Amino acid sequence: MQFEQIAIVGIGLIGGSVGLAAQARGLARHVVGIDPNEATLHAALERGAISRATTQLAEGVQQAQLVVVCTPVDRIVDVLRAAFPHAQAALYTDVGSVKYGLAEAVEGQRPPEATYLPAHPLAGAEKSGVAYARADLFAQRVTVVTPRRPNQTAAEQTIIRFWEALGSHVVVMDAAEHDRVMAVTSHLPHAVASALAAITPPAWLPFTAGGFRDSTRIAASDPRLWAAILAANRHYVRCALEALIDRFTQFRQLLATGDTAGLEQWLVEGKQVRDALGT
Amino acid sequence: MQFEQIAIVGIGLIGGSVGLAAQARGLARHVVGIDPNEATLHAALERGAISRATTQLAEGVQQAQLVVVCTPVDRIVDVLRAAFPHAQAALYTDVGSVKYGLAEAVEGQRPPEATYLPAHPLAGAEKSGVAYARADLFAQRVTVVTPRRPNQTAAEQTIIRFWEALGSHVVVMDAAEHDRVMAVTSHLPHAVASALAAITPPAWLPFTAGGFRDSTRIAASDPRLWAAILAANRHYVRCALEALIDRFTQFRQLLATGDTAGLEQWLVEGKQVRDALGT
Repeated sequence: MQFEQIAIVGIGLIGGSVGLAAQARGLARHVVGIDPNEATLHAALERGAISRATTQLAEGVQQAQLVVVCTPVDRIVDVLRAAFPHAQAALYTDVGSVKYGLAEAVEGQRPPEATYLPAHPLAGAEKSGVAYARADLFAQRVTVVTPRRPNQTAAEQTIIRFWEALGSHVVVMDAAEHDRVMAVTSHLPHAVASALAAITPPAWLPFTAGGFRDSTRIAASDPRLWAAILAANRHYVRCALEALIDRFTQFRQLLATGDTAGLEQWLVEGKQVRDALGT
Repeated sequence: MQFEQIAIVGIGLIGGSVGLAAQARGLARHVVGIDPNEATLHAALERGAISRATTQLAEGVQQAQLVVVCTPVDRIVDVLRAAFPHAQAALYTDVGSVKYGLAEAVEGQRPPEATYLPAHPLAGAEKSGVAYARADLFAQRVTVVTPRRPNQTAAEQTIIRFWEALGSHVVVMDAAEHDRVMAVTSHLPHAVASALAAITPPAWLPFTAGGFRDSTRIAASDPRLWAAILAANRHYVRCALEALIDRFTQFRQLLATGDTAGLEQWLVEGKQVRDALGT
């Protein structure tokens, strides 16, 4: 698989890594990077994450056979709608962490020859920006794709093969189910890490060890990106939060009664799940 | 500083590491390991964490100038009381994660020549057992000591120098204040990691990435050890839990109203604390 030209919209950690990976794996002769920030484009060119740069979406996508939208989640729909008229037969995909309603939101504007397959590579870091981009970011990771219909078209299958060619394992999932799962496995953990950090007086930081460090690492993530994700998935994040608070209610009761055996069993239930994940 | 003989009671991750570090740094000619489990003692001898082994507390401590109690927190008082008659002029310290009331609990049984200085090295791992012991476990870490009086005796200063000689930076703190701080910086994070893991259906684990992995790592900790810690510090852990739930109440409200700007500010407050800690 090799595209003559790929366009990447939004050159941050993920967009930059798509560019690095696509070139490292020979998937594109040219990679156009599109970003409003000229310094970002310059850095991406220097790193070799893209081979051409532009701040103009229309110009950037018009020669592309594949457009990968790597903007924050609250920009994806606008970018797709703006790009469609300029690359009417292209393949489109994105990397947003929230998927419900995306495909439907652009369906009315999608040219008949264009194909959009929403995607979410489960890769990232607490650091953002093209400086942290890596050609192997997607290797051995899961990429979830959420097609509107159970049977994929040939064009959708090409997009799936692209994500596989970047090194990821593609899983097809219903968009709402994706969001329900991610609320628990990714979105709520970000909010929890933030809350743990926020209730800690800075003067107490010298009295932290590896446990606090690990538990709060993703509290350092970009607040603007994550506010958009949490807002977009607020229904399922609230459901996940209720489950967590129920769990804390049990914990509070066990503390109140000083029930050491009950606390041990409560901890065993968490350990069993975590042990199943491996180190 | 070199002791002729140190006794370590409880040869797990921490006890084994005290033995390895004390020998690596030439702090003891002989290190006696005391543990009820013969397989553990055998493993500790093989690793060189101890130079002699016994299952008998009285026999193990009687020649020691320094006794380091590395049992779970709910065993420390009993071990000290049992050891005192057999090493009446020794120095005693421990590694428990909860300090309030420990010194007072044994004061009536302490022989006049013996000195007990409660200690808590802020070092550990989600893995327990002597197999994970490391000679550098305490290097660059904080060890909190909680003397009963503001001015330390010469014997207490010797114990402080021992913890410094293991590589740690010693901080003197009030025992209750230690427990209040640790509830936030260590004990509650363990419960939170456990709760996050426990609410995750195992079938969803393939849809986790680094964020979940980091946030839940300490959910794999030993449930028996941690149940004892949480129960011993239940007053301050409940206070910390209330602060966390207040924080989640704000979060729930921001989700309910879809207030993206408010969510961003909420996340910024956590990020500021976490960024102050460094990577």
